[in-house]
Amino acid sequence: MINTLHFSSKSDLSLLDRIKKESQQIGYFNLPNQDTSYIDNYLSQLDALQGLDSITDVVVVGIGGSSLGAKAIYHFLKPLNNLSRQLHFMDSTDPIAIHNACLNLNLESCHFLIISKSGTTIETIAIYKYLIEVLKNHSNNQHPFTFITDQGSKLEAHAKTKSALVVNIQENVGGRFSALSTAGLIPLALAGINIKLLLSGAEKVQKSFFEAGYMQETLLKKAQFYAENSLTYGINSIFSYSESLKYFNHWYVQLWGESLGKKQKNSSFNVGLTPIGLIGPKDQHSFLQLLAEGKRDKTVTFIKLESFDNLLKIPEDTLEGLEALDIINGTHFSSLINMQADSIIESIQDSQNIPLDEITLKKQDAFSIGQLIYYYQLLTSMVGDLLNINTYNQPGVEAGKNILINKLKSIK
Amino acid sequence: MINTLHFSSKSDLSLLDRIKKESQQIGYFNLPNQDTSYIDNYLSQLDALQGLDSITDVVVVGIGGSSLGAKAIYHFLKPLNNLSRQLHFMDSTDPIAIHNACLNLNLESCHFLIISKSGTTIETIAIYKYLIEVLKNHSNNQHPFTFITDQGSKLEAHAKTKSALVVNIQENVGGRFSALSTAGLIPLALAGINIKLLLSGAEKVQKSFFEAGYMQETLLKKAQFYAENSLTYGINSIFSYSESLKYFNHWYVQLWGESLGKKQKNSSFNVGLTPIGLIGPKDQHSFLQLLAEGKRDKTVTFIKLESFDNLLKIPEDTLEGLEALDIINGTHFSSLINMQADSIIESIQDSQNIPLDEITLKKQDAFSIGQLIYYYQLLTSMVGDLLNINTYNQPGVEAGKNILINKLKSIK
Repeated sequence: MINTLHFSSKSDLSLLDRIKKESQQIGYFNLPNQDTSYIDNYLSQLDALQGLDSITDVVVVGIGGSSLGAKAIYHFLKPLNNLSRQLHFMDSTDPIAIHNACLNLNLESCHFLIISKSGTTIETIAIYKYLIEVLKNHSNNQHPFTFITDQGSKLEAHAKTKSALVVNIQENVGGRFSALSTAGLIPLALAGINIKLLLSGAEKVQKSFFEAGYMQETLLKKAQFYAENSLTYGINSIFSYSESLKYFNHWYVQLWGESLGKKQKNSSFNVGLTPIGLIGPKDQHSFLQLLAEGKRDKTVTFIKLESFDNLLKIPEDTLEGLEALDIINGTHFSSLINMQADSIIESIQDSQNIPLDEITLKKQDAFSIGQLIYYYQLLTSMVGDLLNINTYNQPGVEAGKNILINKLKSIK
Repeated sequence: MINTLHFSSKSDLSLLDRIKKESQQIGYFNLPNQDTSYIDNYLSQLDALQGLDSITDVVVVGIGGSSLGAKAIYHFLKPLNNLSRQLHFMDSTDPIAIHNACLNLNLESCHFLIISKSGTTIETIAIYKYLIEVLKNHSNNQHPFTFITDQGSKLEAHAKTKSALVVNIQENVGGRFSALSTAGLIPLALAGINIKLLLSGAEKVQKSFFEAGYMQETLLKKAQFYAENSLTYGINSIFSYSESLKYFNHWYVQLWGESLGKKQKNSSFNVGLTPIGLIGPKDQHSFLQLLAEGKRDKTVTFIKLESFDNLLKIPEDTLEGLEALDIINGTHFSSLINMQADSIIESIQDSQNIPLDEITLKKQDAFSIGQLIYYYQLLTSMVGDLLNINTYNQPGVEAGKNILINKLKSIK
């Protein structure tokens, strides 16, 4: 993974010191170094209960941080078609979406992961209750559920009454920072993703950052620039040039938005950096015009794959009437998509006041996505520190939750 | 469709006059009243050539405005499971996405719509060239392609050399305003969507707006507010409470971003309103925190379905350990999702400086989505007028295109 900044900024080592201190308390920092033997234990236990060979599909029932991390990593790797099980995500209370999800699954060969950090997420428990009923009628499987939740939660207590498998989320790991915790790794391991490779990608960025490697200066500079210019450039867009990064973009939106949209400590001043996820070349035909000529309120990060595991080529055929487009003949699609990215970068570089940087991932593998996930978590922590906010809470969503609970109580 | 504004604004009838004048030149305004007999003619011709019964899947090869409109409408209606053919969209140059799309299709029973307004869109022609080669080896179908393009384009000239079916896009209809043109209606008709119902929804909004109906004052006020406050509230987010509106959000992002991100007429001042598409309740666990406590730079429009065509209910089961969540028992998922929306609306209303409005669609049908599409096109035209920009061009994307063409030429 290479990150090139096209703007200048300073790196402040006191920020590094504060992040080092924070890393002793906040759980996600040390996840790359976790002992993963619990995953093998879990798989053995599940094998004993349901028989791993009988499981073709794994359904993650979870919303927000309980699904976005696994979804991002899974969809980055799935197009390579080398995974052992399909993952599905039930993350909505839309009745038609729930109905169709159940309709399209072979329930008998599914295993369901009920993931809720707090253990009382209304959406997740509502879907879980519905699934219990559906499975009663459509499956003889005695152990279709695993529960992934914080130690001591009500969901854990419930699971124990059913003698179901429970995996706890590591301590002090917030939902949006949980991609590399049990909440992400258990579903990904079931899909057959190489967890060790994923974590070693994250570890490489971790070491490089904390041990004065290449990532240290780059990340310090980028965070400093984003925080210092947050009033001018309040929108941070990512332009990913691979279809497989679509759900990575969603994950980024949650990580960035929910972490950095806050009232400042010791004041009630509202600060916030707004994340936007784009996919190239598609969004060259959509959002690009706004980026190129609209208000100068956006930074943009281009993410590219250095190499695609695919040799698809545009054939050398001349089409009558379209001879002018023979310029694309013989070009690999992988070259075309990267040339498209480079062309936009060049065209925007010439404009004033569009701060941009480039991230190049070596290839579409678990190592690279592990790097990218950890990189963005570090960046988020640093910008949160500089904005003088609590990066790890989400008090702004409580009011809506309480109103919903009152509404539900009042219709009883 | 009901639209309730929770902010105050004035309605300026001179804006209405200017839009009336504009509607005589810009093609999209009159699409609801088009004669659709060409669709029946087209279907008959295609039947004669390939046999409609033999077509199970329709593949739209098009990018940006050539696919987003059909995609938005199709995905709104598809979950109801009453369509006659599946639509697929090839809108990327990602080699692995192209490869997998071909792998997962039964090519023999597909029909391909090559859609390009200009007729020389590089991505679309590249995929078309690749498909010609793939079909040579995997299909005996002599007429797998229909071409949808502007009259007189190079793509039309090419199609004629092949004696292939061509449908022209109506005059003066820009890509992002083409959902209800041939570019949208041909694929949607092939999917079995009720085109007349779709257009009559659009027509209802059209009449209501131009003939001093309910929509006139609402739209005039909303446009005025968005334009007047564009420097304060530079981000316009949509929070859609139905999974089926996911691609409507994408369509909105293109329409809004590409239309309203511009240099002002008679000056080089960069203006622009930034669109964001959210899906509830999912994004309550993601973007909501930023909306609720972040910088006050966002308006938000909640879109809800008044009724879901589905009676799915949360079962009346008490779960040991989770008794506290019995409050959700017996609730329809359709009530739950709308209560979730209402709770967030209430919680944000109390905050200062988050201008919000609500759109309620009667149901998940072609009429409602026709209304919504036309409503947003009108709103875009009005805000563009007030911002003093050309709403209908996209000069900012030309530089990148030219650099790409030079890159392609230089590697020959």
